[in-house]
Amino acid sequence: MPDPDVTLAAIERARERIADRVRCTPILHNETLDTLLGAHLSFKCECLQQTGAFKARGAVNAVFSLSDDRLRAGVVTHSSGNHGAAVAYAARLRGVPATVVMPTNSSAAKFDAVRDLGARILTCEPTLTAREARAAQFVAETGAAFVHPYDDPDVIAGQGTLALELLQQQPDLDWVLVPVGGGGLLSGVATAVKALRPQIRVIGVEPARADDAARSFRLGSLVPYQVPDTIADGLRGALSERTLAIIRQRVDEIVTVSEQGIVAAMRTLWERLKVTVEASSAVPFAALLEAPPAMREAICGRRVGIVLTGGNVDLKTLPWS
Amino acid sequence: MPDPDVTLAAIERARERIADRVRCTPILHNETLDTLLGAHLSFKCECLQQTGAFKARGAVNAVFSLSDDRLRAGVVTHSSGNHGAAVAYAARLRGVPATVVMPTNSSAAKFDAVRDLGARILTCEPTLTAREARAAQFVAETGAAFVHPYDDPDVIAGQGTLALELLQQQPDLDWVLVPVGGGGLLSGVATAVKALRPQIRVIGVEPARADDAARSFRLGSLVPYQVPDTIADGLRGALSERTLAIIRQRVDEIVTVSEQGIVAAMRTLWERLKVTVEASSAVPFAALLEAPPAMREAICGRRVGIVLTGGNVDLKTLPWS
Repeated sequence: MPDPDVTLAAIERARERIADRVRCTPILHNETLDTLLGAHLSFKCECLQQTGAFKARGAVNAVFSLSDDRLRAGVVTHSSGNHGAAVAYAARLRGVPATVVMPTNSSAAKFDAVRDLGARILTCEPTLTAREARAAQFVAETGAAFVHPYDDPDVIAGQGTLALELLQQQPDLDWVLVPVGGGGLLSGVATAVKALRPQIRVIGVEPARADDAARSFRLGSLVPYQVPDTIADGLRGALSERTLAIIRQRVDEIVTVSEQGIVAAMRTLWERLKVTVEASSAVPFAALLEAPPAMREAICGRRVGIVLTGGNVDLKTLPWS
Repeated sequence: MPDPDVTLAAIERARERIADRVRCTPILHNETLDTLLGAHLSFKCECLQQTGAFKARGAVNAVFSLSDDRLRAGVVTHSSGNHGAAVAYAARLRGVPATVVMPTNSSAAKFDAVRDLGARILTCEPTLTAREARAAQFVAETGAAFVHPYDDPDVIAGQGTLALELLQQQPDLDWVLVPVGGGGLLSGVATAVKALRPQIRVIGVEPARADDAARSFRLGSLVPYQVPDTIADGLRGALSERTLAIIRQRVDEIVTVSEQGIVAAMRTLWERLKVTVEASSAVPFAALLEAPPAMREAICGRRVGIVLTGGNVDLKTLPWS
């Protein structure tokens, strides 16, 4: 297993690099939800971030970390979701062409978002193998720089900037809850939080139907990947050796939530916080709503930071309608 | 017509009075919408306000302006919507009982919101006459203090605090667009804006199907009130002598928008800004989307402040599903 290679210093450099290019997103509070959980909740609203998701942070940091020479042929990535739009956004800011390999079953809204940001789209079969192969082929043909959705120290450092903001906005947190898919966000957040406030408990949350991170975390090595079937489409990725190593070292716990719990949490956040979070975003809050008695008791009176990761949803097909 | 009796000084006092009791709401920007309109838009997100609407400002200012003696029997209001929850919220903060007269056809969500805030609910027939009569009867029986939804200088001054914040957050505005129903918000905002930055153009926007304010504004006197049929349920009220006087003196223009325009604007705001604004909130943005060529040209390159008034929607019945 490689040593974790993302440091607080890298995250602080990332913050400077991306400062004028992404938003410092607001924190929302809600008394009704606080009363419901018996805790003080601080929701970090990355759904209000550029491109509608925290992914802009990592993509901008990665693209702006590359040399002009390395970017001569532009950048490429593969993504069915928010990372594609984030790379398109970063490339547009940098003034280089972006290509996004997208599976044919991506939603029309995702295609539109990437296209509206000026990126070229290449479609492929909806499997991880096909995506990776198409992107690798494009790199071989053109020399474009590949920006991985999470297995990249610059991407992880960019995502970690979210935690620097959160700790500044809400210095007195006891817990931080973060969704986990490929683990880029959780790695970046845990690195920043444990370096600055080691007493804060960092908890990853993932759908029970996509629990590879929880199992890999317990086992200490990557479990075989199977495409998971969960409404939280942003969390279908699997940990890499790199993110597993960081998470094993810096994350306290990974818990899982049910599909019904995710939908209930999503709806409650829409109704109470008035933000259109996507299903993946609702996963950490679902962990609080579904908390077993021991966890419910443990959070009582605590100050809990919750990362709402994105807000890109198809309004025509809401899961409760 | 009475002299306008709300001053900048009253609004500044209101700001101090309500400072720790309501939120300073964030401004959101969106490049895609800016590009679409050719203007720089600043959305003031009162949907993220306490109780989910700007109404908390006016209600808190009014309730905290009353003496303990005046509040011995609590407060009462009538409202089918956000003002009821706002008065309930203000009364709870002040520690006095609140009673809200609500028409029987109010949504379950509105009943829940008022009840959850600890207020007593009295139901009545869904007419303005019935609401006013039931509230007046309650005042006569109990001596409770009545807090009008908009025809009250303290309520208007409270709503005006929104503009003080907006001008601080975004000092370089050219235009401010505000929805108009009973005119309390528009009166407060116009008073603050014209006192501080008279060069800013203040525009009221209302549904064409509820255009009493536009007609009264042009005529210079109140037109007869008919219950309007519009999806923007927060804008069904009619101007009072007081709000008409203030608006005639301080507002530059009132424009109207179509029902389809309101729905399209609402959906665009959900999709792009990621906030669950209610239909009434989408009315000013609809005016930009539907702007005739002359207005489209006039806003080109301008800095436009847009008040998103509230976010209380029934997620089960969205107008585009």
